[in-house]
Amino acid sequence: MPLALDPAAQDLLFREARTANAFTDEPVTDEQVQAIYDLVKYGPTSMNQSPLRVTLVRSAEARERLVRHMAEGNQAKTAAAPLVAILSADNEFHEELPHLFPHFPQAKGFFGDRSVRENSARLNAALQAAYFIIGVRAAGLAAGPMTGLDFEGVRKEFLDDDHTPLMVVNIGRPAEDAWYPRSPRLDYDEVVTVV
Amino acid sequence: MPLALDPAAQDLLFREARTANAFTDEPVTDEQVQAIYDLVKYGPTSMNQSPLRVTLVRSAEARERLVRHMAEGNQAKTAAAPLVAILSADNEFHEELPHLFPHFPQAKGFFGDRSVRENSARLNAALQAAYFIIGVRAAGLAAGPMTGLDFEGVRKEFLDDDHTPLMVVNIGRPAEDAWYPRSPRLDYDEVVTVV
Repeated sequence: MPLALDPAAQDLLFREARTANAFTDEPVTDEQVQAIYDLVKYGPTSMNQSPLRVTLVRSAEARERLVRHMAEGNQAKTAAAPLVAILSADNEFHEELPHLFPHFPQAKGFFGDRSVRENSARLNAALQAAYFIIGVRAAGLAAGPMTGLDFEGVRKEFLDDDHTPLMVVNIGRPAEDAWYPRSPRLDYDEVVTVV
Repeated sequence: MPLALDPAAQDLLFREARTANAFTDEPVTDEQVQAIYDLVKYGPTSMNQSPLRVTLVRSAEARERLVRHMAEGNQAKTAAAPLVAILSADNEFHEELPHLFPHFPQAKGFFGDRSVRENSARLNAALQAAYFIIGVRAAGLAAGPMTGLDFEGVRKEFLDDDHTPLMVVNIGRPAEDAWYPRSPRLDYDEVVTVV
């Protein structure tokens, strides 16, 4: 086994971790979300752009507004999860670059064009969304990431023109019957080519 | 500390892991890449789409062709890294859905439109690219992901119309002087909003 990561951690983050569809009633605290963020904020992005933004949907009123924009098959679990987070990309991330990438002052100037920014924000926020999912698992919780939703509806309801929602994630302690059977994965030779 | 993941694993994957700019001569074996893939293939994607494809650039001839398409500041380290991988999104991933998402035979039909497929492939392959970077670190190696390159040039040189390159990743054992100083990260309150 050529991995340095210990097998219990491999299981926690990947092998036994699963997308949860049902959760216990145990709350997810702000301290847990802060600990998740303080771990995964170190994951790399292009020029340290760090465009991911997280909207925690905590009030019952906001939860109701969100559920309306979810695909029908995602509504019940989104309504019931202990915590729900909207993950979005900040298309104005370049304003932070003088702070985030201080040794290269020209960086902000690369992103004068909105479509270049949107493209980069989307890629890098997606990387950070994956780190966030790994972080939820690192906290001993299960994540239920969903893309079955009305993205424009969620944007208008919770964000603004400068933010693009990427996914909604249910977070909590998984219930006993939280999983569907694991779906197959592609074999190494179907994914990896050597040149 | 409310994280379940043990601190050594947190350090290995996030806190002490860094984007490497220089590597030792120690080779990265196919067994290591297979172990990385066999761990991170379990990371979640929408409908288990699993669109990430990996091109390992092993031959000197292919390495030379790749270096030509890298931004000037990335050429020397791409030429010198023990292993270089091109990570791309397979825009024809929907052909695999009957195998990958067998309990929902309608899934493939959602992706008849090429632009819908490209959008979904890009998001989900980016999630998988982040899992891959975490997997490289889980193997005790360092990753050097790069987006400073001629994407269309790389696509034409190594891929085809059905694949979109997302990034190139240098992989290896980090040299002693492999890091720039860690850049700052955004504070929790700059990233997380509660509604």
